[in-house]
Amino acid sequence: MSDICRGRKPVIDLLRLSPEKCQKILIADNVRPPFLDEIIELAKQARITYQILKPEALDKLSDGEKHQGIICKLTQVKAIELDDFLKGLDNNSPALIVVLDHIEDPHNLGAVIRSAEAGGALCVVNAKRRSATPNDTVIKTSAGAALRLPVIQVVNITRALERLKAANFWTVGLDSNAKISIWSEKLPERTALVIGAEGEGLSRLVRENCDLLVKIPIRGGTGSLNASVAAALGVFEWSRNYLF
Amino acid sequence: MSDICRGRKPVIDLLRLSPEKCQKILIADNVRPPFLDEIIELAKQARITYQILKPEALDKLSDGEKHQGIICKLTQVKAIELDDFLKGLDNNSPALIVVLDHIEDPHNLGAVIRSAEAGGALCVVNAKRRSATPNDTVIKTSAGAALRLPVIQVVNITRALERLKAANFWTVGLDSNAKISIWSEKLPERTALVIGAEGEGLSRLVRENCDLLVKIPIRGGTGSLNASVAAALGVFEWSRNYLF
Repeated sequence: MSDICRGRKPVIDLLRLSPEKCQKILIADNVRPPFLDEIIELAKQARITYQILKPEALDKLSDGEKHQGIICKLTQVKAIELDDFLKGLDNNSPALIVVLDHIEDPHNLGAVIRSAEAGGALCVVNAKRRSATPNDTVIKTSAGAALRLPVIQVVNITRALERLKAANFWTVGLDSNAKISIWSEKLPERTALVIGAEGEGLSRLVRENCDLLVKIPIRGGTGSLNASVAAALGVFEWSRNYLF
Repeated sequence: MSDICRGRKPVIDLLRLSPEKCQKILIADNVRPPFLDEIIELAKQARITYQILKPEALDKLSDGEKHQGIICKLTQVKAIELDDFLKGLDNNSPALIVVLDHIEDPHNLGAVIRSAEAGGALCVVNAKRRSATPNDTVIKTSAGAALRLPVIQVVNITRALERLKAANFWTVGLDSNAKISIWSEKLPERTALVIGAEGEGLSRLVRENCDLLVKIPIRGGTGSLNASVAAALGVFEWSRNYLF
């Protein structure tokens, strides 16, 4: 049931920004104008079929999540392959790619995608999960960025790091146990910033496959940063030096 | 109903870190060992009374929020006054204070407090709302930091900025319309970093009362950062220069 997108704002964003990801729009028969007209107009423009159904039919599809009377069934989009993406890049300009080592919480994932886009990253690489399509929590938390920035799903993060190295990227892991502070030296011009799950951090294999491990020094009793905050600090530490 | 703290982890944290904020512990009669023993032992150590009640009594108190069979009634702690706090400070060392111009979402507030503590801020100043006591969502999202870092509630943010200036702080507002990038110059040694609500940003009066306005440059289509991410970037931009 994860290949659907629920809710007014997420479905409108999806129709506007990525109509190719929409297969069909389902609208509850208690949805009223002007929203009803807006959504139908958008669906027509994008040549997406829509269907009016009883609210209960949407409840059933929605699997207990709020849908505000509107659900979009997503097409099985052919995912972007990391190799194809890297082939399209100039191998020498400054560039940032964000690699996530198993961040599965959709709120954290969405927040990281939002910061990655704002910080000028080229894409986000994430471990493949059941669904290759953007889910509505991710879209909402990312403020729509998940529909604009390529999110490339890979089976194996370690292998993705090898591909990135071959494409002239330095793989830089954020690791609270690292000896080096992220601020002690400029991050490499071409950085693949690797971020672990909150709590666990980077997995052993991924850590061993990074060219460089850096930590974000912190104070106080919490002992860690939220994963999406750590990601944002890493992303903007690169952007600060190369983009702005 | 906001002067209570619900849930196992928040109440345990509260009993361990700030027993002076606990007035009474209410435990549902369906709570079983070993958690039951743990909470009673902690309450005894902290000399806080506890009471075993029907789960329905806790439901009623909890106002529709999950409580996991445990609620702590909070004492009306005498809040820390900004003036008293500032009097206790050395007026010349590098120092960071985070000022929130109406961030009311408890998740954002908790996230900012967590980053503020990790970045070495002395306290967080927030506009006074109904309750001066930490609520459980804030405590949970802050990973406990809300119980360690002073969160000073003030009636009037503009007046608080005046007090901070008198205590030798530069008031630096984060403002997406500012001309100057946050990275163009080192932040002042004594910075009061002022952060607005997501979406609206700083209110006009607060903006006019800042000594300096800086923006975090961004790319892409979202047009803004999450408020807690912006706060973290501001906090660590200061810490990077003065603490680590």
